[in-house]
Amino acid sequence: MAANTFGELFKVTTFGESHGQAVGCVIDGCPAGLELSVSDIEKELNRRRPGNLYGSRDENDTPSILSGVFEGKTLGSPIAILVNNENQNSCDYDELKDIYRPQHADFTYEAKYGFRDHRGGGRSSGRETLCRVAAGAVAKKLLAVSGITIRAWASNIAGIQQPSPGEDNFDLDEIERNSMRVPCKQGAQNVPSKIEELRADGDSTGGIVTCLVTGVPAGLGEPVFDKLDARLAAAILSIGACKGIEFGAGFASAAVKGSDYNSSDKSSGGIIGGISTGEDIFFNAAFKPTPSIGKPQRAKDRDGNIKEIQIKGRHDVCIVPRAVPVVEAMTALTLADFLLLSRCSKI
Amino acid sequence: MAANTFGELFKVTTFGESHGQAVGCVIDGCPAGLELSVSDIEKELNRRRPGNLYGSRDENDTPSILSGVFEGKTLGSPIAILVNNENQNSCDYDELKDIYRPQHADFTYEAKYGFRDHRGGGRSSGRETLCRVAAGAVAKKLLAVSGITIRAWASNIAGIQQPSPGEDNFDLDEIERNSMRVPCKQGAQNVPSKIEELRADGDSTGGIVTCLVTGVPAGLGEPVFDKLDARLAAAILSIGACKGIEFGAGFASAAVKGSDYNSSDKSSGGIIGGISTGEDIFFNAAFKPTPSIGKPQRAKDRDGNIKEIQIKGRHDVCIVPRAVPVVEAMTALTLADFLLLSRCSKI
Amino acid sequence: MAANTFGELFKVTTFGESHGQAVGCVIDGCPAGLELSVSDIEKELNRRRPGNLYGSRDENDTPSILSGVFEGKTLGSPIAILVNNENQNSCDYDELKDIYRPQHADFTYEAKYGFRDHRGGGRSSGRETLCRVAAGAVAKKLLAVSGITIRAWASNIAGIQQPSPGEDNFDLDEIERNSMRVPCKQGAQNVPSKIEELRADGDSTGGIVTCLVTGVPAGLGEPVFDKLDARLAAAILSIGACKGIEFGAGFASAAVKGSDYNSSDKSSGGIIGGISTGEDIFFNAAFKPTPSIGKPQRAKDRDGNIKEIQIKGRHDVCIVPRAVPVVEAMTALTLADFLLLSRCSKI
Amino acid sequence: MAANTFGELFKVTTFGESHGQAVGCVIDGCPAGLELSVSDIEKELNRRRPGNLYGSRDENDTPSILSGVFEGKTLGSPIAILVNNENQNSCDYDELKDIYRPQHADFTYEAKYGFRDHRGGGRSSGRETLCRVAAGAVAKKLLAVSGITIRAWASNIAGIQQPSPGEDNFDLDEIERNSMRVPCKQGAQNVPSKIEELRADGDSTGGIVTCLVTGVPAGLGEPVFDKLDARLAAAILSIGACKGIEFGAGFASAAVKGSDYNSSDKSSGGIIGGISTGEDIFFNAAFKPTPSIGKPQRAKDRDGNIKEIQIKGRHDVCIVPRAVPVVEAMTALTLADFLLLSRCSKI
Repeated sequence: MAANTFGELFKVTTFGESHGQAVGCVIDGCPAGLELSVSDIEKELNRRRPGNLYGSRDENDTPSILSGVFEGKTLGSPIAILVNNENQNSCDYDELKDIYRPQHADFTYEAKYGFRDHRGGGRSSGRETLCRVAAGAVAKKLLAVSGITIRAWASNIAGIQQPSPGEDNFDLDEIERNSMRVPCKQGAQNVPSKIEELRADGDSTGGIVTCLVTGVPAGLGEPVFDKLDARLAAAILSIGACKGIEFGAGFASAAVKGSDYNSSDKSSGGIIGGISTGEDIFFNAAFKPTPSIGKPQRAKDRDGNIKEIQIKGRHDVCIVPRAVPVVEAMTALTLADFLLLSRCSKI
Repeated sequence: MAANTFGELFKVTTFGESHGQAVGCVIDGCPAGLELSVSDIEKELNRRRPGNLYGSRDENDTPSILSGVFEGKTLGSPIAILVNNENQNSCDYDELKDIYRPQHADFTYEAKYGFRDHRGGGRSSGRETLCRVAAGAVAKKLLAVSGITIRAWASNIAGIQQPSPGEDNFDLDEIERNSMRVPCKQGAQNVPSKIEELRADGDSTGGIVTCLVTGVPAGLGEPVFDKLDARLAAAILSIGACKGIEFGAGFASAAVKGSDYNSSDKSSGGIIGGISTGEDIFFNAAFKPTPSIGKPQRAKDRDGNIKEIQIKGRHDVCIVPRAVPVVEAMTALTLADFLLLSRCSKI
Repeated sequence: MAANTFGELFKVTTFGESHGQAVGCVIDGCPAGLELSVSDIEKELNRRRPGNLYGSRDENDTPSILSGVFEGKTLGSPIAILVNNENQNSCDYDELKDIYRPQHADFTYEAKYGFRDHRGGGRSSGRETLCRVAAGAVAKKLLAVSGITIRAWASNIAGIQQPSPGEDNFDLDEIERNSMRVPCKQGAQNVPSKIEELRADGDSTGGIVTCLVTGVPAGLGEPVFDKLDARLAAAILSIGACKGIEFGAGFASAAVKGSDYNSSDKSSGGIIGGISTGEDIFFNAAFKPTPSIGKPQRAKDRDGNIKEIQIKGRHDVCIVPRAVPVVEAMTALTLADFLLLSRCSKI
Repeated sequence: MAANTFGELFKVTTFGESHGQAVGCVIDGCPAGLELSVSDIEKELNRRRPGNLYGSRDENDTPSILSGVFEGKTLGSPIAILVNNENQNSCDYDELKDIYRPQHADFTYEAKYGFRDHRGGGRSSGRETLCRVAAGAVAKKLLAVSGITIRAWASNIAGIQQPSPGEDNFDLDEIERNSMRVPCKQGAQNVPSKIEELRADGDSTGGIVTCLVTGVPAGLGEPVFDKLDARLAAAILSIGACKGIEFGAGFASAAVKGSDYNSSDKSSGGIIGGISTGEDIFFNAAFKPTPSIGKPQRAKDRDGNIKEIQIKGRHDVCIVPRAVPVVEAMTALTLADFLLLSRCSKI
C-alpha cells in the first residue's frame, strides 16, 4: 500500500503539507537518457497557477530538481523535485482549528489519524496537486518520445456546456488562451461572467474536464485488474474534488442498444478489455464545487456542536480550470507506467 | 505491477481462461481465525449464475477450497479456490478465430500479446468475474465481523430507471427475488419484457448498477493516491463492461452551487478527501450493452478486411443483473483491504 | 506486502498446506509466446523428489497446468499449476498437535496466527518448495531464451567439503548422477555413508549449496534497495532451512586487503553495486540440519511444560540435496524478474 | 518494482547523487502520533559521520524535516527529510570519468543505464546510506514505543576478532565510545593501529558487523517469501559493500548435527520459519574492503583498454565502523514494516 505513491514502474511519491516548509515529489523509475530541464517543469506548473479571475494564493512555485538529472539528461536514479512554500498565512486558519469545514477532509483526517494539521487543509490541500503536475511534466516528456500527447479542457463549468471535438466552435488552441480553459472563444467570454456572479454571491461551482489522448499505440494496458481505464479512473478520482469519470460513451452507453453501441467507433473511448485500441482515448471527469465558500455555513466542531461559520481568505470560485493540468498530469503518469510495462508483454 | 492481482493487504489473484481447464483465485492476506466454508462461496456464486431469462452457458460452478482453511477457520495462509470449467463448446468459436469481434478484446489482446486464446474470449471473458465473486464472498465475511454490509442492484436497465432509496416503491428485499436484480416489484415485471423484445431483435442493452455500503466506520481510506473512492473506481472499472462511475452527487455535482452541495449530506457519497465519513457510501456504475449480439455485424479480420459476421451461441441480452454480485465483490475486496490497512494509521 | 508472492514483474504466488488437498502456484507476468509444456515442470519436480537414500514421503507429484498456456505457448495470462496431495498420513501428527517441535515453526505460527494446521507443518512444510520448483521451471525456460543457465550443487554436506569449480575432481556433470547432488565422483561415495551413519543414530545434518549462473548480461539488477544480490539473498533465505548466504569472496572478504580483493575477478561474485557485471554469478547458501530427528528430544507444549518427545515417521537426514533444485528455482525466479525489468532502464 | 523504495507499510524512498545538490528521503506510512524532532535524526547521522581516524569528506549533514511532522508529532503523511550536499569537489573525479574503477559500480551503472554521473560514484556512493540512517532514526523511535532496541557493532575488522556477547571483555557500552565501533576496550586500541598501517600502505580492509535486536515479540515476520530473515537479508545486502549475511549459527550450522543444533537456543538467531520466536535476534554481515585504495591499480576504460590508475582524495580505510549505524537503520526499517504488518495477522 502506498498512499502517497503512484505507479508501479514509473513511480511518483509526493510529500508536503499546504502550510509546511515545502512540497515536492520523487520520481523513481524514469528511464535513463531522457532530456529534462527545470523549464519543462516550470511550464506545466505555470499552467496550474491561478489566473487573474481567481482568488487563491498566488505563489511563485519555483521548482528545483535536486537529483536524478546530470548534464541535461535523466540518470535512471530518482528525480527529486522541490518547491518551497512561501506564502503561508497560517493564522487565517487558527479560528477553524476546532471546526470541521463542510465537504473538507478536516473530520475524516481526524477520524483516521486522531490528529491533523489544520492549516489550509494540510496534506488534503489542493496544493498537493502541484507535485503531480511537476511529475506529470516528466511523464509527458517520456510519452512525447513515443508520440503520445495529452490535452484536457473544461468542457462544462457551472452547467455551461462547451462544444465537443468535431463540433462547430470547438478549438483546441483556444484552451491555453483563456483562464477558464474552455475550448471555445465564446465560452471564454460567457463563463467568466457566470463565475463573477457566483463570487459576488459568496458561492462556488463545479464542472467537467474532458481529456483526449492521441498517439497511443494499440496494446497498452493490462487485463483484469489493471485495465487501462481502471487505472486511469483511480488516477483521476485521486484528485481531491473529482466525483466521477466516464470513458467513451460512458453513462449514456447504459441506455444504448448493443447494435448501435457496436457500430460507433467512439463508443469505447479508445480502450477495450482494458487495453488501448490505438484510437484516441477520451474521458470526462466530474468535479464538485469548491467547498470553501464565502457564504455563512453550518459546520460541526470537535465536540459535535453545530456552529455557523464563515470561511475567510480568497478561494477559487471554481477549481476546474486549475484541475485541467492536473488531469493531464495524472493521465500522463498512468500512461508512462503502462508504456514501460508494455515492454514486458511478449517474450 | 500485478495485472491479475487485486489489493495490497487482502490480496486476490485470479487465473483461468473461459474455455481452459479451470478458473480460480488465491486470496493472500486474509487474517487467521475467520470462519469460512464452501457454502459461503457457493451462495455468492449462485447469485452470479444466469437466471432463466438469460441465454448464456449455465455451469454448475462448484467451488473447492484447496488450502488456507482448517477446521472451518482461515489459517492466515493463502486460500486457493478452484472451479473447473465444464461446459466448453470451444468449436462454437472456431470460425471466429481470425476475426476481431466488435467491442470485444480480441484485437487488443492480440495487439498486446501477439497471440490469443480465441475460445470465448479466453482471459477477457466474463467468466473471470466468477473468481472475483468467490473471493468477494470471503471479503464479505471479513467485513461482516466489523458490521459492514454491501448491497448492489440494477438501478437502470435499457433506460428503464428504478426508484432510489427513500423513494416510493424502492424495496431492498425485492432485489434477490427477481432475476433482473431491480429494487422494485414493478420493475421486476417491466424490465424482462423489454429484455425479451431486444432478444427477439438479436440485440442487447446496458444499464446502471448502484451500490450501497452501510456500517463503514469513519476513517477508512488513504489520502492522496489511494483514496477510497479512487480505489473503488479502479475496482469497479476493472469489471469488463463498466464504462463509468460516480460517487454521491457524481456528475450532477458539476452544475450545482457550492452552497447547495455543501448543505446536503448526500453529496459526498460517504467519502471526503478519500476517507470514509462514517455515513453510507454509495455510487453508480455504468455498464455498456453486451457486445455479443445476434444481429449481423461488420467486423475486421486479422488481415484488415471488413467482414459481415453473425455471432452464434446464446448470450446475455444484458449482463447488468449478473454484474450486481460482481460489483458487490469488488467493493468488498476494496473495503477489506482498507479495513486491514486502517489498523496501521495510528501509533 | 505479499507474504506468499515473489517477484514484481515475473510474479509467483504459492498456496497449499502440507496435508491439505493440494499445493500449487500462480505465475503472473510471464511474457506471451514462451513455449511451455507439463513435461518442463515435471522434469524439475523429479529433481526435487527424494532419492532412495532418503526417508521422506514419496509422492508422484504430477502437475497440471490449469491456465495461461494455449497451443503449447504462454498466453501472457496467469499460469496456474496444481499438484494434488496424495499421501497424507495426517494421523502421524496427531500426538504432536499440542507440542512445539524444536526448530520447527510450530510455536511461531501459533504466536503469529493464534492457530495452526499441525499436520506436517502445514504451510511451513518443505512441501511448499515444490511450488517454487514448478514456477522456477517456467522461469528457467524464459532465461534460457536469453542464454542464461543456472546450476547448483551440494558443496558441503555434514562437513565434507566438495571441490570447487576449477579444482581437480570438480565435475558439473556428476551432480545429477548422484542422489547427494555433489559435483565429484568421490563425494558421491563418501557422503552417503556419512548420511547412513547419522540415520542409524537418529540424527541429521546440514550443508552448503553453491549456485553458479552463467550467461547473465551486464546490467541486470537495480541500484540501492533492489540490488541483485539483495534480492537473491531474500530469495534464498526464504527457503525454510537456509541460515546464511555469501556472494563471491563472501565472509572471507572481511579479512582480505583491498588491493588483493580488487585484483581478483572472483571477489565480487559477478555483481557490483547490485548490478551484474556480465561475469558468472556465484554464491553459497548455508542450510541447517533437518529439525525432525529420530532421537528423543525435549520440547515445549502449549502450556509451557517441557516434555520428552520422539518424532515418528521417515524424514530426510539431510535436505541439502533436495534444496539444490529449490535454490536454482529461486535464483531463476529472481533473475526472470530482473531480466524483464531491465527492459525499462533506458529510454 | 521500487529500486529506491524500501518497505511495504513503513516505506522509505531515498534520492540523491553523491555530488548532486542534495540527498534525502521520504518516509510514507509512519503512523500518526509518533513524537519526532530533527534532533532524533541528527543524533543518528552523527554516528555515521567519519571519526578522526577516517579520511573521507566530513560534511555537516544537517537534516531538515520538510513535511509530515506538526507540533512535534508525526501526521501520518509523508515525512520528507533533506540534507544538502556541501562539500562536493567534483573535479577530483574528472580524470576518472572514462575509467571504470575496480570493484566500483562505474561499469555496471553504465551497462545498465548507458550513462552515469561519474562524480564520486553518483547514486552508487556510500553517501546514499545517510538517507537510510535518517529514515532508520524514525523507525527506531517507532520500535522503541514497542520496546524493541537494536544494537550493532564491528565484531571483526581486518581479521581482528572481537569478543561476542557473554564472553569476557564484551562490553556493549564501549561501542559508542570508540571510533571503530568495537565492543571491547582492548579492540578499541588494537584495531586503529592496524588501520593506520593499512593507510600508510595505501590499502584498505573489510570486516564483520554483528547486530543484536532485543524486545521483539514472538510472531513478527511473514511465512514463505517474506520471512523475517529473508527480508533482513535483503535489507542488509542492499548496503553497498555487504557480501554476506548469516543468522544465528549461520554457516557453522551446516556441519552441526541436528541433535546439537536443536538443543541450543542460540542456533536459530531468534527466527524460526521466518517468524520471530520472541528471543533475541542476531546476525552477522560481512563487508568487503573499501574499493578506493591509494595504491596504483589496473583498471579498464570505456574503450576496453587496461590502464594503471591511482585514486586520489581521502577515503575510509575501512567502512565497517560507519556501516554500523547503517546496519541498525536497515534492521529498524525492516522491523518497523513487520511490526505494522503484524497488526493484520489475526481477525
